[in-house]
Amino acid sequence: MNNSNFELIMDPSNDKFKDECGVFGVYANNTIDVASMTYYGLYALQHRGQESAGIAVANGEKIDIHKGLGLITEAFKQEDLEKLKGRIAVGHVRYSTAGGKGIENAQPILVSSKMGPIAMAHNGTLVNADVIKELLEDGGQIFHTTTDSEVIACLIARSAKKGFAKAVIDAMSAVRGSFALTIMSKDKLIGARDPHGIRPLCLGKIEEGYVLASESCALDAIGAEYVRDIEPGEIVIIDEQGVNSYRYSENTKCQTCAFEYIYFARPDSKIDGLEVHTTRVKAGEQLFKEHPLDADVVIAVPDSGIPAAIGYAKASGIPYDTGFIKNRYVGRTFISPSQEIRERAVAVKLNPLKVNLEGKRVILIDDSIVRGTTSKHLIESLKRAGVKEVSFLIASPSVKYPCYFGIDTPYRSELVAANHTVEEIRDMIGADYLGYLSETGVYKSCEDREGFCMGCFNGVYPVATPIEEISKDLER
Amino acid sequence: MNNSNFELIMDPSNDKFKDECGVFGVYANNTIDVASMTYYGLYALQHRGQESAGIAVANGEKIDIHKGLGLITEAFKQEDLEKLKGRIAVGHVRYSTAGGKGIENAQPILVSSKMGPIAMAHNGTLVNADVIKELLEDGGQIFHTTTDSEVIACLIARSAKKGFAKAVIDAMSAVRGSFALTIMSKDKLIGARDPHGIRPLCLGKIEEGYVLASESCALDAIGAEYVRDIEPGEIVIIDEQGVNSYRYSENTKCQTCAFEYIYFARPDSKIDGLEVHTTRVKAGEQLFKEHPLDADVVIAVPDSGIPAAIGYAKASGIPYDTGFIKNRYVGRTFISPSQEIRERAVAVKLNPLKVNLEGKRVILIDDSIVRGTTSKHLIESLKRAGVKEVSFLIASPSVKYPCYFGIDTPYRSELVAANHTVEEIRDMIGADYLGYLSETGVYKSCEDREGFCMGCFNGVYPVATPIEEISKDLER
Amino acid sequence: MNNSNFELIMDPSNDKFKDECGVFGVYANNTIDVASMTYYGLYALQHRGQESAGIAVANGEKIDIHKGLGLITEAFKQEDLEKLKGRIAVGHVRYSTAGGKGIENAQPILVSSKMGPIAMAHNGTLVNADVIKELLEDGGQIFHTTTDSEVIACLIARSAKKGFAKAVIDAMSAVRGSFALTIMSKDKLIGARDPHGIRPLCLGKIEEGYVLASESCALDAIGAEYVRDIEPGEIVIIDEQGVNSYRYSENTKCQTCAFEYIYFARPDSKIDGLEVHTTRVKAGEQLFKEHPLDADVVIAVPDSGIPAAIGYAKASGIPYDTGFIKNRYVGRTFISPSQEIRERAVAVKLNPLKVNLEGKRVILIDDSIVRGTTSKHLIESLKRAGVKEVSFLIASPSVKYPCYFGIDTPYRSELVAANHTVEEIRDMIGADYLGYLSETGVYKSCEDREGFCMGCFNGVYPVATPIEEISKDLER
Amino acid sequence: MNNSNFELIMDPSNDKFKDECGVFGVYANNTIDVASMTYYGLYALQHRGQESAGIAVANGEKIDIHKGLGLITEAFKQEDLEKLKGRIAVGHVRYSTAGGKGIENAQPILVSSKMGPIAMAHNGTLVNADVIKELLEDGGQIFHTTTDSEVIACLIARSAKKGFAKAVIDAMSAVRGSFALTIMSKDKLIGARDPHGIRPLCLGKIEEGYVLASESCALDAIGAEYVRDIEPGEIVIIDEQGVNSYRYSENTKCQTCAFEYIYFARPDSKIDGLEVHTTRVKAGEQLFKEHPLDADVVIAVPDSGIPAAIGYAKASGIPYDTGFIKNRYVGRTFISPSQEIRERAVAVKLNPLKVNLEGKRVILIDDSIVRGTTSKHLIESLKRAGVKEVSFLIASPSVKYPCYFGIDTPYRSELVAANHTVEEIRDMIGADYLGYLSETGVYKSCEDREGFCMGCFNGVYPVATPIEEISKDLER
Repeated sequence: MNNSNFELIMDPSNDKFKDECGVFGVYANNTIDVASMTYYGLYALQHRGQESAGIAVANGEKIDIHKGLGLITEAFKQEDLEKLKGRIAVGHVRYSTAGGKGIENAQPILVSSKMGPIAMAHNGTLVNADVIKELLEDGGQIFHTTTDSEVIACLIARSAKKGFAKAVIDAMSAVRGSFALTIMSKDKLIGARDPHGIRPLCLGKIEEGYVLASESCALDAIGAEYVRDIEPGEIVIIDEQGVNSYRYSENTKCQTCAFEYIYFARPDSKIDGLEVHTTRVKAGEQLFKEHPLDADVVIAVPDSGIPAAIGYAKASGIPYDTGFIKNRYVGRTFISPSQEIRERAVAVKLNPLKVNLEGKRVILIDDSIVRGTTSKHLIESLKRAGVKEVSFLIASPSVKYPCYFGIDTPYRSELVAANHTVEEIRDMIGADYLGYLSETGVYKSCEDREGFCMGCFNGVYPVATPIEEISKDLER
Repeated sequence: MNNSNFELIMDPSNDKFKDECGVFGVYANNTIDVASMTYYGLYALQHRGQESAGIAVANGEKIDIHKGLGLITEAFKQEDLEKLKGRIAVGHVRYSTAGGKGIENAQPILVSSKMGPIAMAHNGTLVNADVIKELLEDGGQIFHTTTDSEVIACLIARSAKKGFAKAVIDAMSAVRGSFALTIMSKDKLIGARDPHGIRPLCLGKIEEGYVLASESCALDAIGAEYVRDIEPGEIVIIDEQGVNSYRYSENTKCQTCAFEYIYFARPDSKIDGLEVHTTRVKAGEQLFKEHPLDADVVIAVPDSGIPAAIGYAKASGIPYDTGFIKNRYVGRTFISPSQEIRERAVAVKLNPLKVNLEGKRVILIDDSIVRGTTSKHLIESLKRAGVKEVSFLIASPSVKYPCYFGIDTPYRSELVAANHTVEEIRDMIGADYLGYLSETGVYKSCEDREGFCMGCFNGVYPVATPIEEISKDLER
Repeated sequence: MNNSNFELIMDPSNDKFKDECGVFGVYANNTIDVASMTYYGLYALQHRGQESAGIAVANGEKIDIHKGLGLITEAFKQEDLEKLKGRIAVGHVRYSTAGGKGIENAQPILVSSKMGPIAMAHNGTLVNADVIKELLEDGGQIFHTTTDSEVIACLIARSAKKGFAKAVIDAMSAVRGSFALTIMSKDKLIGARDPHGIRPLCLGKIEEGYVLASESCALDAIGAEYVRDIEPGEIVIIDEQGVNSYRYSENTKCQTCAFEYIYFARPDSKIDGLEVHTTRVKAGEQLFKEHPLDADVVIAVPDSGIPAAIGYAKASGIPYDTGFIKNRYVGRTFISPSQEIRERAVAVKLNPLKVNLEGKRVILIDDSIVRGTTSKHLIESLKRAGVKEVSFLIASPSVKYPCYFGIDTPYRSELVAANHTVEEIRDMIGADYLGYLSETGVYKSCEDREGFCMGCFNGVYPVATPIEEISKDLER
Repeated sequence: MNNSNFELIMDPSNDKFKDECGVFGVYANNTIDVASMTYYGLYALQHRGQESAGIAVANGEKIDIHKGLGLITEAFKQEDLEKLKGRIAVGHVRYSTAGGKGIENAQPILVSSKMGPIAMAHNGTLVNADVIKELLEDGGQIFHTTTDSEVIACLIARSAKKGFAKAVIDAMSAVRGSFALTIMSKDKLIGARDPHGIRPLCLGKIEEGYVLASESCALDAIGAEYVRDIEPGEIVIIDEQGVNSYRYSENTKCQTCAFEYIYFARPDSKIDGLEVHTTRVKAGEQLFKEHPLDADVVIAVPDSGIPAAIGYAKASGIPYDTGFIKNRYVGRTFISPSQEIRERAVAVKLNPLKVNLEGKRVILIDDSIVRGTTSKHLIESLKRAGVKEVSFLIASPSVKYPCYFGIDTPYRSELVAANHTVEEIRDMIGADYLGYLSETGVYKSCEDREGFCMGCFNGVYPVATPIEEISKDLER
């Protein structure tokens, strides 16, 4: 077992797709503590990014900002928050890559422009950022970061003479890809979602004004009332006149990332009208329809497999029980041990609960398989704990393609399903049975809707992606 | 809502009893990486203490040590671990008090003595430490810390001329209270448990030698085989002759802390032959026998209430479902917000899952109530989420007395059950029904054994406690 | 004595003008360790700025950068340096303001542009940065920082189509003020000095290529040979063709900041052909010609007054001796004590050496007076040490005007000589005699040259400064 | 040039003996801010130790303490100081070894004992600590640290029944070696100096009470008046009755470490009635008597060689001038460069001032030679700067023996004079002439007193040192 495999095993969440960001915004009519609100909002969105966190606050004249590395609780001290006074705020949490990317890429980004200061928080990825960046550089523009977000800020500044709202609309029309944005001038808060709604963004109401957030769980966290999701291709401008909505794109079909429902979003969030938790339970029920197996007990890979396991148990009548105990401190950085210890450290993060498993036929449910390394390890540990038979069911289709819209997917060669049949994978991971949910099953678990980006499952993407990008990726 | 209440609500684990430490030890016949083993063992025991962590390693000639504040993952860097070479190790994790106590009280303690260096890790509290310390000071002894553990080390050193084993036995005979100890000379590992076995300690086997740990989950974490629990009043001495057992106390009755089963220990541990998870599920079943209520759904306060809720659901036939979604980042330090925001931040750490709750009659199960502040808050949030009726069941008896044996209990005046009837508490927290498990119910959920310390429930303690201690506490 | 006065007294260097930056650059024909060279170069220039330090390295394809707060030794760890591989480097040290300005304003700045990446290090201040920034914003440009340097980078990028060299020339022509720049593309190193040469910049030769540095002491530090100073209005472009020189400005008169000679530059540097140490010794000799006093001993305020004191001693025949012992740890941040202690802590940083002073008539020499607070304190401490008579001589004219060209001067109201006659100052600080060097004296100590900016002495500046700037300052 | 040589060259102070500690104490009749006083006192003693700093304060009932690594300014934040309230304080600064020894060995040490809490700060080394420690361990004592100081604390506690004063006297009688101690109970401050007065300790007076300090410069720093030095073999007990003096040892001859005068102590200190600065100037004068050379200029290795150079210049009539410019930031930790850069980085810390040196015959004066590495390097750099002839004079005898009394001396094999004749050393370092001050010369520069420990020069020590110690050292 080499070291990177070890890390996957040590923390199963390392063998999942990674979301890339969470955004938040608040507009208040009077001076309540918008920085603290944003802090709590970001705390609720922490699962969307742990690399860095930042909050910018506008007080009508200028914008102040604080950004830091790590979790929101690490990036902000009391005094940092107290310095941020104003009526409008945008905030951002960013996904932590292995190597860390440093404070210079932390968001929100804050720039000065003809229109005054602009702060922006961005979740998503543009597919034409390079082309537009080149055009802007031809016009003499310089760039300080390698982020898509700086390109958007430049585009807005270029159209400054048309007014802030029109400038944002123009900028949104120029870029292609996925984006959920909260943008702030010194007196306006703007939310924008890409024409296919690939990344989520919703609107909430507080007594004093309005809130924008990647997920509705952030509204709950600060006691805001959920109003609605921002629609694909919609821009909302919030200022003293209230909320105004603009469409910068016609005929859009909502194609929200299916993985938001399957794994990324918090179960207590509601996206585009669908309760995330419910779709996961239904995926488990649907899984039973597609794979009606017999067993003594249904268990889950905690925590993300639990709702589907509960759904499968309900649908099948086989009792659900706890299969693994998770170390509460999973997620903290971890020293990589010597080889000899590594081989033994098999139950450091997920320990099979023998008393529930010994001598039983088990259905094990997980939300997805990416590399398969963790799955193999978990099944081995179940067998060691005395399980007689492991049927492994996955509450999503097999992941075969990379994502171009804001998810950090491994190289395609590392996606086990891109290169192996179901039978091969079953044998590799040592399961007695392996079954995936079908694409139709995903739709059925989402109230029979079909408007999702399923690109990572079937290679069909909502937005044309430059072909060289794809070929480069294939080379990887 | 004042600030300390807010903190309780923000992190429900703040409204629980706190365990005081976890200990670990390993003896190997050849030079495997005992420091890494201890690191992983302590990682598995992390729930027993988060204030500091330390590892001491003996290499036959001397003992090296590293200690640090915070979690084991924070206290140790790769290079710290690499410096600790040897064949024997003891390790310790310590509970984090509000104010933090600083590195000078971190364990293991390492002292030099006539017998050479001695390192020791201690879980528990002596009731006669002050008296013995005074006696030792009369003999000219100086003390560097305020810990009980230094007193034990002194006692051992005083009897040095009798040999290490006899010296430890003598020391154990002199002290009264609770203790689970791992002690190390430069060539021996010793485990000791107090005459009533108030704190747990178990023995495991690895290919190259033996392991001692507060809980068996730490054996699993390093791939050790569970051998047995150390018996109350037993000392085991592990050296090149293998494991030798000594009794320093006769006629002892095992009276392990009942709260280890109810809340402290990890569910995948086995203590004195009882599976912790199973006792919790059974407590839920027993709870149904004592409080056979009707409702639409059984939910739990995560995570500690879940096994009992599953047990209640099984026994009652009422379906178990997820009631709250817990923010994964609970436990990280948190900025305390302004009053205005505090009132809103009602769902920051536990967010009710409305879709499972709206319009329903709910049985909510928690493992214990200490102050009641969190309970009140959770029930309010359920009501706001549309729950029609909340029956609140507690999988343990009501906590009315302080603990003198290693648990950090609040002042008695803060123990809600010390001062209020069940009806009063029910009204204070806003439940429609409130029921506790009986003391008998605790025994029944533990295979009808009766050998537990139930002091915090009934005020009867296994060891006489100096009366002035009690009166002081009553004054608090 | 209030707190800010205390700080002045605690560290006399706080009562001096502050330089604003040091720049460095190296171009090598083969891959020697240019990052380490820059590190040592900046270490030699550390006196020019302690707020932050940064190094950017180009390897022909891209530019890597590392910046950090504090001294160069604090900002860089071994691994930071090791990551910077290439053949060209620019580096920067920045002056530490009281409040600290954060990493976002640290230099070099690194931007991407049509010409590829550009890194730049800047010492000086532009007087027309605001106007040009506004013009650029009108064209849609956004800005990330509030630094003049970003404006220069934008100007260069705007002229990109003309080629890098021409683009830099155009940019230099557009800005007004003081600047010594080291600029780097991925394959060229450029040095530029403003048309009046207000800030110094010199060229050195190493075996493998060329070096640029604010002061020649940085050439000594890395074993480079001094070639010549960059001329006012000159740009040097260093690439594989060697060094090419361009003039972007005609008819310029060198007007280097006189304070570089008086206080800022290291005594072992040579600027525009003048040895700094020698000019200071000659200022002392000149001081004797202008103020031929009688006394028992000549002493200096260490360290900056020492060369002039030696010069005065030589010229007068009065013996030079050590008057104050300086705490070696001056310069480290310091806790500000309570008032009661403050009054006593009179000799914390400079302690009079009584044995050399008691009962004597003393000539005390300092390089300059800014606020006068420290002077008053030092004279008091001499009197307490038994000095009979203190004649205080200043080796520069009285400072009456602010600087607009890169020096952090206090508000004009705080410049003691702006508001008081020599007699008044003498009485305020408690000296028995007070004398300044004349402006002519400055010229004489610099080989009778007259080409210096003496703006802070006489209010006549080499570059027109927007009048509103001045009026704003007067208001301050 | 290897890496450790490089470090010597980079920072000449690395090629000097290291002092081991500075101690401070204050007793006040009312509640002035004794912690701040101690902070400033230790700041003045910072040259005696940079590894760690600590302050303990007694308020009549208990003793609070804060210790930290690094300089006093790094170890203490404002809030650390503010927490230390009381009327009595002791403080300590500790010498920084290469590897750093960690906070556990920082002083003062604080222990509880029969007499209540005791805090102690110690400068010096005991030669019989091991023997006494063994005796104490035989009596059952355990030890937490490897410091001599803990042994002294134990001895005091053992004699507790005799009262604090008598207990300290007894302890002093039991130990042999060098010590200057400040000891504090909750209501008394005690100062003690070893029977030969090897380490200095002096008494000062403030309005509210008394001060003890290793050197008188610390009295100046807080505005205290110098009263007298503590005598060899004297104990002073300061309490509400004032200062009481006790002798625990008869017939002692003061044999203060000669190196205190030569290098360690600050020049503005007075030890045992001798002004340190004056003894250094006189050593220079004496050096001329012993080595009356001809030359164009006398220069010094800064800073420690300067007073002797001034003395030589006075005595000889040859002018003194500045020979080297020292980087102000010397002393900060430094990245060690690659070999190729190392060879060039010849003038990073001391840069010859060519204008004063070129073409001249130079007398270079340093206070001492330890390894000679730095000397060789400096002479080379002078030659490169154009010096025609370098006569190198050392203001102390040649160092041939290790120190057992508190100075960190290198292995004897590394002491260049232990293994080489003067001629050999002269050739090794490349000097044209090399001369040392004679032992008699040391006495003459100290007012013809002879009471000094000259052990490192002649191998004759004031206290018998266990022979095995010596043999072990010789083996090194």
